[in-house]
Amino acid sequence: MQPLKGACIIGQSGGPTAVINASALGAIQTALTDENITRVLAAEYGILGILNDRLFDCAKEDPAELELLRNTPASALGSCRYKLKDFKENDTDYKRVLEVFKKYDVRYFFYNGGNDSMDTCNKISKYMQQVGYDCRIIGIPKTVDNDLFATDHCPGYASAAKYIATSTAEISRDNAVYGKKSVVILEIMGRHAGWLTAASALAREIGDGPDLVYLPEVAFHLGEFVEDVKAIAEAKPSGSVIVALSEGVGDGNGKLLLETIQEGGGSKDAFGHTQLGGVGLYLADYLKEQTGYKTRAIEYSLLQRCSAHCASKTDVDEAYLAGAEAVKQAVLGATDAMIGFRRQDGERYVCETVLVPLGDVANKEQKIPREWINARGNDIGEQFTRYALPLIAGEAAPPSINGLPRYANLKKVFVTE
Amino acid sequence: MQPLKGACIIGQSGGPTAVINASALGAIQTALTDENITRVLAAEYGILGILNDRLFDCAKEDPAELELLRNTPASALGSCRYKLKDFKENDTDYKRVLEVFKKYDVRYFFYNGGNDSMDTCNKISKYMQQVGYDCRIIGIPKTVDNDLFATDHCPGYASAAKYIATSTAEISRDNAVYGKKSVVILEIMGRHAGWLTAASALAREIGDGPDLVYLPEVAFHLGEFVEDVKAIAEAKPSGSVIVALSEGVGDGNGKLLLETIQEGGGSKDAFGHTQLGGVGLYLADYLKEQTGYKTRAIEYSLLQRCSAHCASKTDVDEAYLAGAEAVKQAVLGATDAMIGFRRQDGERYVCETVLVPLGDVANKEQKIPREWINARGNDIGEQFTRYALPLIAGEAAPPSINGLPRYANLKKVFVTE
Repeated sequence: MQPLKGACIIGQSGGPTAVINASALGAIQTALTDENITRVLAAEYGILGILNDRLFDCAKEDPAELELLRNTPASALGSCRYKLKDFKENDTDYKRVLEVFKKYDVRYFFYNGGNDSMDTCNKISKYMQQVGYDCRIIGIPKTVDNDLFATDHCPGYASAAKYIATSTAEISRDNAVYGKKSVVILEIMGRHAGWLTAASALAREIGDGPDLVYLPEVAFHLGEFVEDVKAIAEAKPSGSVIVALSEGVGDGNGKLLLETIQEGGGSKDAFGHTQLGGVGLYLADYLKEQTGYKTRAIEYSLLQRCSAHCASKTDVDEAYLAGAEAVKQAVLGATDAMIGFRRQDGERYVCETVLVPLGDVANKEQKIPREWINARGNDIGEQFTRYALPLIAGEAAPPSINGLPRYANLKKVFVTE
Repeated sequence: MQPLKGACIIGQSGGPTAVINASALGAIQTALTDENITRVLAAEYGILGILNDRLFDCAKEDPAELELLRNTPASALGSCRYKLKDFKENDTDYKRVLEVFKKYDVRYFFYNGGNDSMDTCNKISKYMQQVGYDCRIIGIPKTVDNDLFATDHCPGYASAAKYIATSTAEISRDNAVYGKKSVVILEIMGRHAGWLTAASALAREIGDGPDLVYLPEVAFHLGEFVEDVKAIAEAKPSGSVIVALSEGVGDGNGKLLLETIQEGGGSKDAFGHTQLGGVGLYLADYLKEQTGYKTRAIEYSLLQRCSAHCASKTDVDEAYLAGAEAVKQAVLGATDAMIGFRRQDGERYVCETVLVPLGDVANKEQKIPREWINARGNDIGEQFTRYALPLIAGEAAPPSINGLPRYANLKKVFVTE
């Protein structure tokens, strides 16, 4: 297929990760050296940067500073959570996107994000096809939740998993030092899929890690939870119990425990305010009442998705590859697709990129298979370890200055024509 | 002075740090190679290991495994929080310590901890002097709080400071990606001294970091806090406000804001339970009500003291040195003292160890000088950066296996005679 000549736009969307900028870098560097791509523009705050005509010129960035994106966390271009309407119902936004595409002769659009962002990507792709505007549109996967369909895993997940496994190992050592009964509940991201919470179990590879793992894929039973914690606290000489708890635990069908608690009024304070804090804090308090043990809730919160200082080299490399491949495949003629990863069979971990139709990805969720979770629903098995351990391999420490990571600071020179 | 011949005991006490095991390693390795020290014993759970006659033989450990203590977080020997009574009032525990010391012919005792542990060390030292039992007793400093007297700083502080500065930089990037008004309150350890909270400001060296820093050393005013946050949220294009908040903020004289809130009943829930969570969560909720901004509280919790994967090499080296020096100085005749650090004048950071009388250290607290904090009490100045920046220099990543840190696992062969 004849390569298209024209400008490209790269955008980031949804929650940031430790490696989303590595994907941006892969796309930017590849585009800057491709003779078919006349101009490399980045959208400020994702699709909003197109709607608002806020695009900056990547060629104006210092190449050495740009290179630092490889290890820089959070969305350096700026991100958004903006849901496009169906263009058959309201095409205002789409017309505006087309107008901006035409203004800058944009013939390539690369959008880096998770489920919702692939939906955006898919809608724009279908609209451009319908109006007959020739533009190649490729999605670059990204999500710490690892819940995208049609790909072995998502860039961003492995670094979050590595941070969670490492920190869980460290906390499990810290919590055991006094040899007294003491429970730590680790509240981990993942409303519908337990991939991040399961990652805590990787710490077992170094002899540490959680005693119990509760995932959103199966029903959570408060009574069994208390029983399980007590049994472990009594059995272990250290008395230390580490619970890995997904923020999304509930009835296993999408109803969150936290919602149930709030509806029951059990979490309103004296002024009728909803109890502050998450489900981990609630369960730590409940457990203390039921058992008398010392309990503590720790929420990994934003740390789990932004800790680039603890990123996986495999993840950084694959994130870069996904961005670079998106550009290469588009130039070769691909469009209306997302870059996915397919793992080869065999002992050694080898992953290759594949093209997945955007329509197959948008708005679907990949959950942990039920058979990977034990019967009682309080632990994750070996299948998960075999799946996830290769993903966290390798260190990708950022360059440092004065004992601190040296992260990229872009100039962002905006274009007007 | 004639070196004493006999066994030594090494113990860890108080809250763990990322480098307390580096100090233990320094003491153990130095003692194992000293001809005057006949046996190197470690106390399980600090002073409790002596009272319970639970001592294990460091010579029975695999030297390569022992060496891993250098980068292993949390107290590998086991720790305790056990306050000895004044021996003039009740000498039961002291008699027991003497009995165990005699049983194993212990002539050297090294105790690694913070304020309370130096008090324990001091009391045992004074008791042994009074009863005329010849035993050299040296304290090895350790505390993430950095509040020990008579030393420039404490091993353990710098690694926690590095973790806090690094994570605060990463969070400040994460929180800015949407370009919308959004406040993160980082709740940081330190009930009475603000050293750890101040460490967040080191992130400014890489262009990130907190906008506001609230320390326990000065009075916290709720009204001014809301004003200050609003002014920054309005002024910054990103809308992102990062607040570093000490868990110990209050009236500046030891009365915690959290206590005031709880007394006011504002934090009781429908069942009269005290509101869960800390002061950061409370202030995030209050701020949301007052401003309508998106707010979020993140507590560094145990992570800040156990994240050996992000340790400072300077800290690891100094922690090891403190342990090694304790043994060397004791063999040379020192006793009743703690190893302190004295910083040399000049541009380049150089620190040497000194001996400080235990009586000068026990039960005192070193706070941040008032003049290092700005007039309004919502920020920390350059003097702190000059003080703290050299301490976090250098990376000390643990050896890794399968993408995870390889931490020490001791055999702990207990002795009976």
